[in-house]
Amino acid sequence: MQDRLIPILKVLGMVIALFGLTMLFPLVISEAMADAARHAHDEAVLATIGSGVFLWLLTRHNKRELRSRDGFLLVVLIWTVLPIFAALPLLIYLPDLSFTDAYFETMSGLTTTGATVLSGLDNLPASINIWRAQLHLLGGLGVIVLVVAVLPLLGVGGRQMYKAETPGPMKDTKLTPRMEETAKGLWVVYLFFTLLCFIAFWLGGMGWVDAVVHAFSVMGLGGFSSHDASFGHFNSPLLEGIAVVFALIAGMNFATHFLAFRQRSFHPYRVDPELRWYLFIVLGSCLGLALFLWYQDVYVDFLTALRYASFNTISVATTMGLANADFNAWPYFAGLWMLFLCSFSTSAGSTGGGIKMMRAILLYKQVYRELVHLLHPNANLLTRLGGVPVTNKITYAVLAYLFIYIASIVVLSFVLIASGLDVFTAFSAVVATINNTGPGLNQVGPATTYAVLTDFQTWVCSFSMLLGRLELFTLLVVLTPAFWRK
Amino acid sequence: MQDRLIPILKVLGMVIALFGLTMLFPLVISEAMADAARHAHDEAVLATIGSGVFLWLLTRHNKRELRSRDGFLLVVLIWTVLPIFAALPLLIYLPDLSFTDAYFETMSGLTTTGATVLSGLDNLPASINIWRAQLHLLGGLGVIVLVVAVLPLLGVGGRQMYKAETPGPMKDTKLTPRMEETAKGLWVVYLFFTLLCFIAFWLGGMGWVDAVVHAFSVMGLGGFSSHDASFGHFNSPLLEGIAVVFALIAGMNFATHFLAFRQRSFHPYRVDPELRWYLFIVLGSCLGLALFLWYQDVYVDFLTALRYASFNTISVATTMGLANADFNAWPYFAGLWMLFLCSFSTSAGSTGGGIKMMRAILLYKQVYRELVHLLHPNANLLTRLGGVPVTNKITYAVLAYLFIYIASIVVLSFVLIASGLDVFTAFSAVVATINNTGPGLNQVGPATTYAVLTDFQTWVCSFSMLLGRLELFTLLVVLTPAFWRK
Ligand SMILES: [K+]
Ligand SMILES: [K+]
Repeated sequence: MQDRLIPILKVLGMVIALFGLTMLFPLVISEAMADAARHAHDEAVLATIGSGVFLWLLTRHNKRELRSRDGFLLVVLIWTVLPIFAALPLLIYLPDLSFTDAYFETMSGLTTTGATVLSGLDNLPASINIWRAQLHLLGGLGVIVLVVAVLPLLGVGGRQMYKAETPGPMKDTKLTPRMEETAKGLWVVYLFFTLLCFIAFWLGGMGWVDAVVHAFSVMGLGGFSSHDASFGHFNSPLLEGIAVVFALIAGMNFATHFLAFRQRSFHPYRVDPELRWYLFIVLGSCLGLALFLWYQDVYVDFLTALRYASFNTISVATTMGLANADFNAWPYFAGLWMLFLCSFSTSAGSTGGGIKMMRAILLYKQVYRELVHLLHPNANLLTRLGGVPVTNKITYAVLAYLFIYIASIVVLSFVLIASGLDVFTAFSAVVATINNTGPGLNQVGPATTYAVLTDFQTWVCSFSMLLGRLELFTLLVVLTPAFWRK
Repeated sequence: MQDRLIPILKVLGMVIALFGLTMLFPLVISEAMADAARHAHDEAVLATIGSGVFLWLLTRHNKRELRSRDGFLLVVLIWTVLPIFAALPLLIYLPDLSFTDAYFETMSGLTTTGATVLSGLDNLPASINIWRAQLHLLGGLGVIVLVVAVLPLLGVGGRQMYKAETPGPMKDTKLTPRMEETAKGLWVVYLFFTLLCFIAFWLGGMGWVDAVVHAFSVMGLGGFSSHDASFGHFNSPLLEGIAVVFALIAGMNFATHFLAFRQRSFHPYRVDPELRWYLFIVLGSCLGLALFLWYQDVYVDFLTALRYASFNTISVATTMGLANADFNAWPYFAGLWMLFLCSFSTSAGSTGGGIKMMRAILLYKQVYRELVHLLHPNANLLTRLGGVPVTNKITYAVLAYLFIYIASIVVLSFVLIASGLDVFTAFSAVVATINNTGPGLNQVGPATTYAVLTDFQTWVCSFSMLLGRLELFTLLVVLTPAFWRK
């Protein structure tokens, strides 16, 4: 066991130290603005880099290579340990904040969920809000590596399909220089769009701090804001337009963006098998919900209904989670529909959450095949995705994924309900966290925060975010006894 | 098209005429008791037998054999047309009853759902209450034929597995004398248990009308009662004990009962792959919910908590749906857990609803296999059920089944919510009807009836009951355009 843990801890030490380096960004901002959180950042940076280096020093003599099975534990450790260090600036600056809440907040940041327990955001120092949003940026980078390089290797939940399916950079992904290259290529695209989003917000009239916070928040499909009123604070159709365009971009497969950049062509978008469904379903729902809200007299003119329906629907469906209206006050059909969308709309290889459009399409095709099969029992039907036949192995993995996904929602909802939360809050909190969306309905709606939850309920939601972000299996495998056997 | 319809209509005519003959039972009771519904039964019998014979006369010269594809349409027609005739006694006796409500009531009877729109049951003539319950008896007989003989032939939702899996009477089921023989064997067992249940209720102190009604209701896992207070009317632990024992029997595979009878041995029960899970989950939940209700001070002493938890949990989990307490007034965890159980507890080949334990076990095994596969990627793992390997074909059918099942619940809930029903009532009504359970929660809880629904909502619930009873695919296939093409 020790043999197995040491090489993992060595990598973990390096990751922690690197993570500590990224904390220099809010530190510099804090110093430059001379805000009240300077000491918090100072101490956090020292503690984080120090811990990482110390862990590395302890384990540096190990020469054993990581095996693919170690990947599960490493990923889980990274995603559970980093939130502890990420929470340090919050804990030091806000002495009344409990560890439970701080861990929830930073787990929410790194998983790009964006559910918050903090209020009075408008009065927090810029450096603290930027640190919160920066967790989305880093979480987004982490997810891209995870999805592109780590999960296909580990074979989680049908991820194998991307090897065969996605053209170009994602083909035969191995933990080799090739994979590093792929990840770097996608990172460049991601950071380029983040920069573009920042400039657009800034030109659109945001202050630079708000522009940084919301650019990170939008491109990571995170959802933290520097304002209690979330995006409603700006009350600007222009800024809302910018936000939804970049949210839609962030919900697409970054490999597709990467190819489009390299080929300087729109062709990759046209052949992306998820893209057309994603846009059709999300934009169709915007129009449908606009008509619904107008018909229900929530908004008296259609254009206003369209504005609010579009922003919030795209925001929730892409799992971004910023809000410009309290959609919890709309007829429940609207909020539930939006939560339904967030469970499957975003593309694989995006920073979004949920089961991903790819899996939804595969499931749909399998079911359709089954119906045709009933009518033509002797026909030999093959399911294809993007022209490539889908193997049994992938279908089974996706089936298992769907089953675990639904079972997780059921079990976690029951746990929250049994702990005394009302049914609607419990269910929507689980859906909003497991899909890494952020705001739920009822007590955890967009106008409120997750601070209403008890400590126990908060931990359940932290677990739910992690479970969703690690595509269920990565975490569950580590929790099986079989994993810990020799 | 006409070529295809005529042989189907010929069989339908015969089925209607036969169904009309079964109406003689309540007619005789009505005459014997000289109750107020005599003319209603008279007219209904005449109209039903007349219509059936007329349809048969029109189509009797057709000699074409039914093809297996025609089976879908025939089954759907039988289950949609018979409720119309079944509604005649109700419509004639209760002139204020709308057709929508009467059709819901008889659909609820024939699908053994047991959701009711009627109140004042205690004051209805015995013959009317017996007719309602008799629909459960006939529906149960119908379901046994459907599941044993028709669906495996049509290949719906993994039904093929029983051919390989179940020992003895269900092996290589074909529409041959062998199938008729199988169905008859199971019918005898079913009717034998119904008689036994009647005698037990009668000896236990029920009047004979109540004993008939509730024996039909229990063995069909229906849920209609002759009392507004449902089983709470009797307030008798003895009768409750009898009811749950027979409900548990009715929730088992009748092929297993049949084998046990023929071999005069308990061995078939020991090797039934569903039985141990079914009893473990249902009885474990009784104990768990009893502790929960006691802990939550719903009942002050444990034995009372155990009594009410057991009766209602077994009743809902087996999809029987009789109640002896208003479990909607319990903490919501309890009611939701019971509804959760009803979606998968009963065995295939029982009169219960839901996805069936067999499919749940198969899904669970597939998922477990997938987890092991992540740790041992090169292991060649085979899923087995009752010792027999499960083919890809069956797994795919079960996957499609699960997907359609969940999609149906989501879509129908959204339809009810959009039509103005509150979320909790809508969701629980869909779950309670698609699983053919009966009582839901909130506005359609055990202390109320489905009469609160609008006409539109009532039709949605009627559709939901039919969809669940016909194992989803049978109905959906008929609704595809492909089915109606040459
Ligand atoms: K989010
Ligand atoms: K029932």
